[in-house]
Amino acid sequence: MISMAVIRRLPKYHRYLAELIRNDIDRISSKELSEKIGFTASQIRQDFNCFGDFGQQGYGYNVRELYNEISRILGLNTEYSTVIVGAGNIGQAIANYTRFEKQGFFIKGIFDKNPKLVGLKIRDIEVKDVEELEDFLKNNKIDIGIISVPREQAQKVANIFVKSGIKAIWNFAPIDLEVPDDVIVENVHLSESLLTLTYRLNEANLFAKNKQK
Amino acid sequence: MISMAVIRRLPKYHRYLAELIRNDIDRISSKELSEKIGFTASQIRQDFNCFGDFGQQGYGYNVRELYNEISRILGLNTEYSTVIVGAGNIGQAIANYTRFEKQGFFIKGIFDKNPKLVGLKIRDIEVKDVEELEDFLKNNKIDIGIISVPREQAQKVANIFVKSGIKAIWNFAPIDLEVPDDVIVENVHLSESLLTLTYRLNEANLFAKNKQK
Repeated sequence: MISMAVIRRLPKYHRYLAELIRNDIDRISSKELSEKIGFTASQIRQDFNCFGDFGQQGYGYNVRELYNEISRILGLNTEYSTVIVGAGNIGQAIANYTRFEKQGFFIKGIFDKNPKLVGLKIRDIEVKDVEELEDFLKNNKIDIGIISVPREQAQKVANIFVKSGIKAIWNFAPIDLEVPDDVIVENVHLSESLLTLTYRLNEANLFAKNKQK
Repeated sequence: MISMAVIRRLPKYHRYLAELIRNDIDRISSKELSEKIGFTASQIRQDFNCFGDFGQQGYGYNVRELYNEISRILGLNTEYSTVIVGAGNIGQAIANYTRFEKQGFFIKGIFDKNPKLVGLKIRDIEVKDVEELEDFLKNNKIDIGIISVPREQAQKVANIFVKSGIKAIWNFAPIDLEVPDDVIVENVHLSESLLTLTYRLNEANLFAKNKQK
């Protein structure tokens, strides 16, 4: 099994390689890539070695090939059906973010329990009542369930996803979901990200005060 | 200096303690907290020890005191002025997210270069032309700059923030910003989070195929 640390670096490689392609760069050494991306060259070589034998020592990597290979490793050579539950601010922002569609993520349904939102159209997809979610999932093969409801409702939505056989959940609710081992959860906890920022902003301050005590 | 790993756990402690308070729990041992939060009890004690001497061995932690202390450590005992640059999907979602205001984050300005968005009101704040950003920052003390523009414009916005003395940037653009050492950047890279999910969804598959080779 590949470690989560390596896995989390892969999308970053993918992003940098996309940039190299946009800049018409055909070939890059691990050293040059290292300068751009900020990981050491040996780290980069080790990471890539986890996935097999691409890139020839001394000649550098063929950018396009490496990009395609990492795309494949990231599972981007296929399409994904998604549903969004929670059509509030974040749910709508994700639904409206057309870039995901270009990467192969297609929104098949958007659900909310708020009658004011049910019936609303977001990019031609009508928001359905969350009561219909379970039936919808019976009749549609969905790969990724996206949760953007308030904290209190998130576990309930996750339970419906799990029961319906969804194996991947992208969770924006500020809660750690309880799911079986074969279900993957990836969290985006915005508040925690923001609090990390304020902590670091105050850190100098904090320890100066502690010293004075 | 406290390690980033510890720092990233703090908001999670904060969130769990808030939940304990909502559930009227006054006192909790590191062992009980460990069962809830999923870190080991010794990890929890070590983390808290970084910040001084709270919690009495054997008696457990006073939940409210611990919550207040971690709030203080996270810098939540103060208010923050923010500006959002980029009034697209993500920018609007953040601007509309009232929970941040309750935590002390106040949006003082929203900027965009799209004439269709300039003049739009988001919760009583009128979107201004990004051309006015630099002047605005001269006349207003802003603590946190939020970047939610497309990749191509993000570094330019960061440069204006840096030049204006902003020391903390919350960056949603899919790019690693270059800033001086005394400026803190916290990234929310949604695409990378999503690709981590698809990687993990495909991992079993991927290695099965590799073996067949």
